[in-house]
Amino acid sequence: MIGRLVIFGVGLIGGSMALALRAAGAVSEVVGCSRSEANLTEAQRLGVIDRWTTDPALACAGADLGVLAVPLGSMQGLSAAIAGHWPAEAVLTDVGSSKQAVLDAVRAGFGRLPRNFVAGHPIAGTERSGVAAAFASLFQDRLVILTPADETSPLAAERVAGMWRATGARVEFMTPAHHDHLLAATSHLPHVLAYALVESLARMSERDEIFHYAAGGFRDFTRIASSDPVVWRDICLANRDAILEVLERFQGDLDSLRQVIARGDGAELEARFEFAKDARDRFSEKMQAQLDQ
Amino acid sequence: MIGRLVIFGVGLIGGSMALALRAAGAVSEVVGCSRSEANLTEAQRLGVIDRWTTDPALACAGADLGVLAVPLGSMQGLSAAIAGHWPAEAVLTDVGSSKQAVLDAVRAGFGRLPRNFVAGHPIAGTERSGVAAAFASLFQDRLVILTPADETSPLAAERVAGMWRATGARVEFMTPAHHDHLLAATSHLPHVLAYALVESLARMSERDEIFHYAAGGFRDFTRIASSDPVVWRDICLANRDAILEVLERFQGDLDSLRQVIARGDGAELEARFEFAKDARDRFSEKMQAQLDQ
Repeated sequence: MIGRLVIFGVGLIGGSMALALRAAGAVSEVVGCSRSEANLTEAQRLGVIDRWTTDPALACAGADLGVLAVPLGSMQGLSAAIAGHWPAEAVLTDVGSSKQAVLDAVRAGFGRLPRNFVAGHPIAGTERSGVAAAFASLFQDRLVILTPADETSPLAAERVAGMWRATGARVEFMTPAHHDHLLAATSHLPHVLAYALVESLARMSERDEIFHYAAGGFRDFTRIASSDPVVWRDICLANRDAILEVLERFQGDLDSLRQVIARGDGAELEARFEFAKDARDRFSEKMQAQLDQ
Repeated sequence: MIGRLVIFGVGLIGGSMALALRAAGAVSEVVGCSRSEANLTEAQRLGVIDRWTTDPALACAGADLGVLAVPLGSMQGLSAAIAGHWPAEAVLTDVGSSKQAVLDAVRAGFGRLPRNFVAGHPIAGTERSGVAAAFASLFQDRLVILTPADETSPLAAERVAGMWRATGARVEFMTPAHHDHLLAATSHLPHVLAYALVESLARMSERDEIFHYAAGGFRDFTRIASSDPVVWRDICLANRDAILEVLERFQGDLDSLRQVIARGDGAELEARFEFAKDARDRFSEKMQAQLDQ
């Protein structure tokens, strides 16, 4: 049971965490903290938070558990703002998509990494953003990856894992570097490609006509290009090396496929599409089986 | 009203056309023709067709309207097989994703382009294939592009447009070359990218782990990589020039975005993501408005 939960950044993820923990009866009180009063009053009106303040230092008072749910670029500033105020015994976690960058930011903001800080990342979300998009079942049957550092308290890690299990999520542990490598491939690269495709088509002179004739396949393919630009700017900056590695690999593979198309090699094209379809069908079946469990 | 409708290739598209026209009471009898007896008996069992034959020449007897719904690579051979048998007064159309290639194939197969042949393409589909995936509402509120040639009979074009309107689709007309250019951007390029991304990740040594941690965004982004490899091999061969043009443009834009990430230019990254998000949000709102009409 969590006493006073403090959500720093009450958007899609932070808001959904509050709603999920409330729905599970796992939290007594939720305090919201962000820079925008409009955001906070909306969150209170929606029943996501009980109280709010725009002052991070004040938000720390009496905290039992805190969540840094702000874009990656705001992590260090926020950490510095709460460093002298966060209760030593209170557990702190985050939801950022690049774990090495978060650990660096929290370490820099606090002057050292608090033993009760447990870096974490829920593999869940939608292309929508803002607290109005939050919903209690966002994490149901989803994975959450926790990446404790060497100095992290095992008890704090267990507390954060328990919080996530209360939202319906499944928890796994790995190193920050491994997390960043995997997420660059499964999440960051597809977002970069979706943004790049929409941008490329939107710069063509016939853009209005092109979008007029696009259909369901295009809608699904580009859904993630409607994601929050600030969040994704920060992810690209924070996880730059891992993203560049998979992006350059992809560019090489795409160029090789372009050459197959250019030389009209039907047998090779079919073999490569078949290989991709098999992999994608297996992924889809496994994902469906997990959701059906 | 259509008397005897002949569907050559009873898969997702051909099967859904038959179901939609039956549901609308717009057809008296549906004859299926394909190379696979198993496919045809399944189509008959599912109520998609009334009768079938594996012999294209026999399928032509008494036809009122015919649809070539086979992969692009099979269009010329099929045209040649029915050329001496297709009734001169019967209207013929197709559903291929590259209109110049279809016109060339039909012209080559028949020896000349029949006046009653009207090239067409429904902008609709799913990543599934085969007659079991067919459903009557696939074309509801979707666009169908017809690309008549100079020698095409206006009456035949109007007949095909009427058939599509009976399925619930909206019909537009344009030149074959313009269709191929637009579809390369909105459909063919995204399919190539989805296949290429899944292939690239599936060749990485940690592929099982990567797919384990992939989530909803990845699932939507890669949905079209589950499409039929033979259909997409043929599209890439048939519409090669237009695809290479947009693919090379995309490669340039992607590399420019990679450079922005590499040099860590946050302002430029945010501006480009914001531009893409705006375009994608506008597309999404328009598409939703069309579906809500």
